[in-house]
Parts: sequence; C-alpha cells; structure tokens
Amino acid sequence: MEVAPIGAQARTLPDPRQVPSKGVIPVMRARGLVLTAPGHLALQEFDLRPPDPGEVRIRVAGCGLCHTDISFYSGAVKTRHRLPLVLGHEIAGTVVEAPPPHADLLGKDVVVPAVIPCDTCDLCRAGHANACLSQIMPGNHADGGFATDIVVPGRHLAVLGSDRGGYDLAELAVIADAVTTPYQALERAGAKAGDLVIVIGVGGIGTYGVQIALARGARVAAIDIDAAKLERLAQFKPDWTFNVRETDGSAIKKKLMAESAVSTSRWKILEMSGTAPGQELAWSLLVPAATLGVIGFTMDKPQIRLSNLMALDATAFGSWGCSPTLYPAVLDLVFSGRVTLRPFIERRPIAEGPELFARLTGAHEGAARRTILIPK
Amino acid sequence: MEVAPIGAQARTLPDPRQVPSKGVIPVMRARGLVLTAPGHLALQEFDLRPPDPGEVRIRVAGCGLCHTDISFYSGAVKTRHRLPLVLGHEIAGTVVEAPPPHADLLGKDVVVPAVIPCDTCDLCRAGHANACLSQIMPGNHADGGFATDIVVPGRHLAVLGSDRGGYDLAELAVIADAVTTPYQALERAGAKAGDLVIVIGVGGIGTYGVQIALARGARVAAIDIDAAKLERLAQFKPDWTFNVRETDGSAIKKKLMAESAVSTSRWKILEMSGTAPGQELAWSLLVPAATLGVIGFTMDKPQIRLSNLMALDATAFGSWGCSPTLYPAVLDLVFSGRVTLRPFIERRPIAEGPELFARLTGAHEGAARRTILIPK
Repeated sequence: MEVAPIGAQARTLPDPRQVPSKGVIPVMRARGLVLTAPGHLALQEFDLRPPDPGEVRIRVAGCGLCHTDISFYSGAVKTRHRLPLVLGHEIAGTVVEAPPPHADLLGKDVVVPAVIPCDTCDLCRAGHANACLSQIMPGNHADGGFATDIVVPGRHLAVLGSDRGGYDLAELAVIADAVTTPYQALERAGAKAGDLVIVIGVGGIGTYGVQIALARGARVAAIDIDAAKLERLAQFKPDWTFNVRETDGSAIKKKLMAESAVSTSRWKILEMSGTAPGQELAWSLLVPAATLGVIGFTMDKPQIRLSNLMALDATAFGSWGCSPTLYPAVLDLVFSGRVTLRPFIERRPIAEGPELFARLTGAHEGAARRTILIPK
Repeated sequence: MEVAPIGAQARTLPDPRQVPSKGVIPVMRARGLVLTAPGHLALQEFDLRPPDPGEVRIRVAGCGLCHTDISFYSGAVKTRHRLPLVLGHEIAGTVVEAPPPHADLLGKDVVVPAVIPCDTCDLCRAGHANACLSQIMPGNHADGGFATDIVVPGRHLAVLGSDRGGYDLAELAVIADAVTTPYQALERAGAKAGDLVIVIGVGGIGTYGVQIALARGARVAAIDIDAAKLERLAQFKPDWTFNVRETDGSAIKKKLMAESAVSTSRWKILEMSGTAPGQELAWSLLVPAATLGVIGFTMDKPQIRLSNLMALDATAFGSWGCSPTLYPAVLDLVFSGRVTLRPFIERRPIAEGPELFARLTGAHEGAARRTILIPK
C-alpha cells in the first residue's frame, strides 16, 4: 500500500516498482503501523520519500503509545491528515539521512518533539509556538513513528549526548509527550516551590506531572480512580494521594484547605485524565484566584459552571504539547534521576501493535505502563 | 425593622427607642431598599450604626441597579450576608462622617468601589486583591447603597476633584462596577492597541467594555441579541457588530478571521452577557492561543467542550470586580470623554425601586439604560 507522504499536502509518488530514472524521486520501503480506517490498523510496508532540504530521515528506536493514538485509532478524534496514515508521535531514534542544512545531525541519536513548530507563523513569532498554525505532529499531520523509519523536519530535534542517565534510546521515546507535556503545563501554570499542585489522573502523563512538580519543590496531591497507580507513586512521596472511588471533590478540597496552608492563589489544579469526570472534579476544586490546567483531551462536554471562574477570579488554561526549547530542561530532569521513567514504561515488538490498540480501545482504565513499540 | 449591620459578622445593636446612655452606641435612622426574603423588597427605615475607626458614613447621591442585584432579589444568587439586607453596590456620594484615620475625607465626594479588598490577607498580599478573602461588597457582604446613608471602609474610596467631565455625582455611581469591571477585565486580558476584542453582551457593562477597548486602540466586535443595543453603539464606531438572532458563532468567527487580520493569539473574547448561550457563543469563538474572559455571571451550566482549551492552547479567565487601584484610570477615561456614560443611564427615585426590581426579574433582556436610584 501507499500511504500519503509526510507534509500537510499529499503529493504523488512514483511507483517504486518502476526503475527510477533521472528526475524521479527515489523512494524506499519502510514498515509501520498504518491506520487505513477507524479500527483498522496493520503492520505494513509503505513507501517513504527521501527527506527534502530541511528534513532528515530517522531510523526509529522506539515510539511510545499514547492515549491520543487510541483516540485516532477508534475514530473518536480525527487525524489532521487524511487516512491512511502511520500513527505515533513519541519518537526516539537515530538520524540516518541528513541533507543540508542538517548534515551535522547525521548519526546523532535524537528525541523528536511531538509537536514541531514552524518558527515563522504569527503565533510562533508571538511566542505561542505551542499553537503554531503550521505545526507538524507526526502521526497526526503526517506519517508517524510506529515504523522502521520516519522523515521529519530537522529543526528542533533534541540531540542526545553520551550521558543518558542509564536509559537506552528506545526508552527515551516517552520524553516526547508523556514527560514534556506535563512539564510545559507546569511551566505555563507557573508552578514553583511552595505551591500546591493537584494532579488529576496519574496515568501516562500524570505520573510525570507529579514527579516534575515534586522536583520543583511544590506540595503535591495526586488523584486517581486506580489504587494501583496511586500506590506506585508512593516512592516519590507526594504529600497527598486521593482515590476518588473513595472520596469526592468537596472532601478533597476541605482536606487540602485544612492541611496545606498554601494560599489559594498558589493552587495549580492540573487535569491529566482526559475525561469529563476528571474535568468536573478539577472544576469542583477551584478556589479563589486559583489556576486550572486542562492537559488531557476528551470530546465529552463536562457539566461545569463556567461562571465560577468569575466568582473566584480564577484562570483556566489549556496546554498543548511542549515547546522544543524546553526539551533540554526535561532531559536534564530525567538524566539526573529527579524524574524516573522506568517503572512506567514497557517495550513490546511493533508486531503486537494492532492487538494492543484493539485491547486498549474502550478500556475504562489506561495501560498500567506506557508501551514503547520497537520496530526492529 | 432592624437589618443586620454592615461587616461580615452581625452584631447586636441597641434598641433605638431607648434613650442612649453613656457607653451605648448611638444609632441613626436611615431609609433604604431592604430585601427581607427573595422577591420581597421594600423601602424602609432601618438602624444605621456609626462608623467604626477605619470606616466612614456616606450620604448616598445615587446607586446603580445591576444585573447582580436582580439575581440577589430573585434568589438566583444568595447574598453572602444573611437577609434582611439593603442591596446596592454602585455607589457615589458624599462623606458626612469620618472618624480618624479618615478625617481628611469629610465633605469629599467619592465613588465607593464595588469590591473593597482588605489589603492584609494572603491574596491581597499576593497581588490578587480582586479575590480578597475578606472583601466587602456593599449590598452583598454588608448593607448596600440603595439607601440615604451607608457606612463603608474609608480605604480605597475614589475621591473626586472638581473636574468631573460635566457629570453630576449621582451619575458617577455607575463607575463602581459597570465601568470599572470591564476595565479590569480588559487589563486582565492584556488588551492593547491592534488586538481584536470581542464583546458578547453590550448591556450594562458590555457597552463600556466596547468603549474602553476602542479607547485602547483595539479593533472591536460587539455582539448582542438586541438590535437597539447594537445600534446605540454605532456612535462609537466599533469595527463590527453582530446580532446573534441573525447569525451564529461559526459565521462570526469566519468573518473576523477573514476581515480582521489580527493574529489569533491577540483575540480577546469577553463574555459580558452573563448567560449560558453567551458563554457557549464565546467558547465557539475560541481560536489558537486566544484569551477568553468570563465577566458576566450565571448559575447556569453551558454546554462546552472544555478540552478545546487544550487543543487550542488557549486561556480562559474570570474577572471579579475591579481593583481600587485602577479607579483613577477609569475616572480619567470618563472625564476626558473617551468613555461616555450618559446614553446608557437614567435616574429614578428610590421609591420606584421595588416595582423596578419586580419588572426586571425574569425579563429576557436587561433594561435599555442602567437605572441609578436616587434616595433623596
């Protein structure tokens, strides 16, 4: 099969069975998880065009499987690029083809930012790279990383040195979204030492949200419906954990008010479950001059009194991805051991992808560990 | 009847029919609109205690009637202080009793801020005076300004000089909420020259929101369901007006995208109708990196996809009242003629208050002009 090539606009590629002649772009065959229609994902060979100037080809070491991929798979959220499309946006790998101006990247191990801004649009120039109008998110705007190879822009790649905190390259794939997304959200919330950070949903990204908040010296409350997910956070010593199967927003707020002694203007409530009940819980925790961040995504509409923002002079923000400029700080947190990946990840061969997607779709709770699919 | 005295905590007042003896606090008789139960408002005499140190007594020149007063009257929103209570929080008047440390205020004409912060709580010290935990809003936390006299804190009163732009004192009552509240919201939104400011609901506060945004050099779109309200704004030359009885959010967004040429990160969408449909419209206008302000209040819960904040990397804030520190800038806008009050206000004798409250309750559209009740 031939999937649409990378880039916002589809182009016609030559038939690879023809002998390339002068002037015809040579293509290579890659192998990856191709979504042809909602619910239809298969490991297939596909044509991969060579990198244009400004782009590089990366041999993928591993690609993390995110809740968003499941939403694309099920059809709950449409990909920006039409199907068929290779999914996957949490990518680590090695640059194996690097035309100018990125020849210096050849052979380098890199993490590919999940959202790659264009640097030139109005929003990029206004300091809103996150909302870049021409952003490329692999596996959404273009073919993604559940594949042997991927062609991506060479700009903004996070180049790895020799100190990797004991992690191997594939494991670092989860930096590109699972770890950087909560980092950006905590930056955006202005979370600092002495603040109260409340993380709702300690799954794929929330586990890192809790660790990053603790690394910043905040007091942290972790909330989930899954006792096992709360228990495995115990090693990081969050100040409070709450299982909302056993308590509710009103009791949580009361307890945090009584015990935290943190001024309400320093409450940062971060919704990372991507569910309407999680968003309703977040809203119920609003206090005067507090900040609420929406980091998880759901198409569902929660039942919330929007006017509470006014009555409490409060702020709600949404945070999309992470600016590539913040990746070095995130890598430093991971390599220095202040943020730990290993209890929260597992590797599986890419061939297990289709079965794994099917299993996770419609599951009430996410996977216990984030799966990194290995294409080799 | 004896209403609860001003201040967050009720105190026992002496029976005014007794001859005051040494050590007994003398009280005076005032006259005002007392809400005894939802829907029960009457012009009555009541006991008014003398000002404590730090407070002053003001002879009220006029008090504006706000949508919030109607919500208190109907019972849709409860007052913070128990009933019975004198309503009214848009007050202009003359200081007639001023014990130390505010003796210098005696005889001064003033506007009373609708929300008076304490200056000492955590939130005040953290720069969030709007959300002050011990704030006093007359007619909500304490007896209000639909009365001949009121006792309020002497701090933060906006003292008027001789240049009043041709307005008389009673007319300036609407500064305290109707004009300052949208000013604070535009400050909070960071609205500046060249931004696109979209005001939804050009009633009591929205009319001023439009004028203030234009005075700041923003491009302005005014939206309402009332053609007459939109027409009377024509003299101020907003860039666009939309009647949502004739169009919808999708068409408005498309038109503003095509015609404004303002980067979406500079869109400031300000909901001032205080209705769920207005909030849903505001939400539908969200664009990448935009800012949405909730300034009107409703207990209703709109149907909104909260996650759009995340997908668009956008911000929503609520703005409550206005910091007294901003009142001088607002007075300057009004006295210099850049913001015009007169087409939007009318005076009525306070005796007409009960009938007016009853008429406005449940009305689908607010009053064409904001009524200033005159106690004399």
